[in-house]
Amino acid sequence: MGPTFITLEGPDGSGKSTQAALLAEKLTEMGLSVLLTREPGGTPVGRRLREILLNPDVQLSVMTEVLLMAADRAQHVQEVIKPALENNMVVVCDRYVDSSLAYQGFGLLGDVSQVKAINEAAVEGVWPDLTILLDVEPEVGLRRHRQAASAAGRPSCSGRAGGLDRIEQRDLEFHQRVRDGYHVLSTLYAQRFVVIDTTGLEIETVAQIVWEAVEQRFKGDNR
Amino acid sequence: MGPTFITLEGPDGSGKSTQAALLAEKLTEMGLSVLLTREPGGTPVGRRLREILLNPDVQLSVMTEVLLMAADRAQHVQEVIKPALENNMVVVCDRYVDSSLAYQGFGLLGDVSQVKAINEAAVEGVWPDLTILLDVEPEVGLRRHRQAASAAGRPSCSGRAGGLDRIEQRDLEFHQRVRDGYHVLSTLYAQRFVVIDTTGLEIETVAQIVWEAVEQRFKGDNR
Repeated sequence: MGPTFITLEGPDGSGKSTQAALLAEKLTEMGLSVLLTREPGGTPVGRRLREILLNPDVQLSVMTEVLLMAADRAQHVQEVIKPALENNMVVVCDRYVDSSLAYQGFGLLGDVSQVKAINEAAVEGVWPDLTILLDVEPEVGLRRHRQAASAAGRPSCSGRAGGLDRIEQRDLEFHQRVRDGYHVLSTLYAQRFVVIDTTGLEIETVAQIVWEAVEQRFKGDNR
Repeated sequence: MGPTFITLEGPDGSGKSTQAALLAEKLTEMGLSVLLTREPGGTPVGRRLREILLNPDVQLSVMTEVLLMAADRAQHVQEVIKPALENNMVVVCDRYVDSSLAYQGFGLLGDVSQVKAINEAAVEGVWPDLTILLDVEPEVGLRRHRQAASAAGRPSCSGRAGGLDRIEQRDLEFHQRVRDGYHVLSTLYAQRFVVIDTTGLEIETVAQIVWEAVEQRFKGDNR
């Protein structure tokens, strides 16, 4: 397994961050060099942008949100992802370009063409080899997410309702459009997408399915 | 003179900020409602982005810079410029979309097509009615600018060389490409551009020429 770029996608509360960490651990145990990273906020500049993007007290226009997410991504690609791939590492990234297409494209604008054009400039040709979509009903995901945030004593931004950030706070219809958008993307980019329905599954079971998807995808791959 | 959007453009040290303020003053004296603003940093979010964009200690990829400038602009348009124009005001803006085309497009990328596409998304149809380009040789502009920054005891960022910000610090060839880029834009958008060669002119003289350009442009305009 040579330089490989794997992204984890899905609605809030789908278990992306946990599964990304478990996957990175497993790959590391196999002796691979692994970079585990996330968006937004995978660079020093990105962390400043993340603070603006997720702060419930900040009012952003839709297009500002699209462009800030893309700016975070452009910096992440140049400073972190591209150098890691050039050093033959496996990059595991919690959210990437499909999050922008699903959240800002389908969720906010109801259309992905503009978000796609902007992000094509941002990623400069660096697309994932494999995208694992952890699917879950928005109601279930948001409930899980709220419980996890509260159990973790998640540091609260002032104004954050029930531990949810600016984007998580949007209504259920928004989150439904995001989920439907992810399904459209998984069809549009079927070659790199693997969809896992996580409903009712334990973390360990999902991790096992994720691992099988990775093995399957890179079987006999001697890049 | 109804809702009118006037932008001031030019290399650093061309006197844009001074002329923007003098023009706003003159328009106000005539009884018009005037909004004087600038980019980057014309909104609360934009001021946080400006601090990132101009800080000499921050390393930004070219595309990150393009996207952050566009994000600042998108927020500025939605939160400040569009509402002011809807309220029948005259908006005078120190730098706008042509700065991105000249600095990031011609100056950094050597091509404007990508920057133009991204900014078309950012401005959402809000283009200037009149753009005044204050032209000056880059050497002259940068010298003036350095003197002004030093005379004003400009608050220094750590690492700022001679009072210049991250973008001003770039080499003379960069600033020459920016200036040449502005000339290309003034031809491309000849209908809204007025070019004033400020070489050797006093501030008051330039202000008089700016005023004549504004009068000429809106003569008999009873919008």
